[in-house]
Amino acid sequence: MELLKVSAKSSPNSVAGAIAGILRERGYVDVQVIGAGALNQAVKAIAIARSFVSEDGIDPVCIPAFKDIEIGGEGRTAICLSVLDRNRTDAMPAKDAAAAVAAPQV
Amino acid sequence: MELLKVSAKSSPNSVAGAIAGILRERGYVDVQVIGAGALNQAVKAIAIARSFVSEDGIDPVCIPAFKDIEIGGEGRTAICLSVLDRNRTDAMPAKDAAAAVAAPQV
Repeated sequence: MELLKVSAKSSPNSVAGAIAGILRERGYVDVQVIGAGALNQAVKAIAIARSFVSEDGIDPVCIPAFKDIEIGGEGRTAICLSVLDRNRTDAMPAKDAAAAVAAPQV
Repeated sequence: MELLKVSAKSSPNSVAGAIAGILRERGYVDVQVIGAGALNQAVKAIAIARSFVSEDGIDPVCIPAFKDIEIGGEGRTAICLSVLDRNRTDAMPAKDAAAAVAAPQV
């Protein structure tokens, strides 16, 4: 799993390029941030990355989630933005399997 | 179209409740923010809203985009987070129709 760590000092354009590259290759990338400034850069980067990959038929969406991590022995709450291609269902995390199973006829 | 405006002072839990309610009813909501503090509250709210609606079979994803708006005669750049249910394709914005059309046999 690719994990991009974005800080408040990250350039949205550079991060967008990285996101676009990974999306083209794998269709899925996790972006991890701590703090409002870092989140701001990450969300801008995802918005920019959408324009980078749209001509490739990739339609990125993101799923935000809280994530408990440890830095220097201290617990912190990060936000993880899972970015995935809406057009590639195989790249999406598993959802509840709701397939109807027909009972075998004996 | 429902538009939620979130500020840096908004409570993520309250916004999450509003997002969940609109998603249950319409399957789609736009969240608009200006600035890193407001974006932080909005993304937290979307993460929380995911847990509120998951038991209803709703799987919200978000699509960030820049949006030029005007406040008091001055131009500002907002970020609009389109939140939609991954399970309800009818609630999603139109995508390029890529359906293969078979040539009629005469």
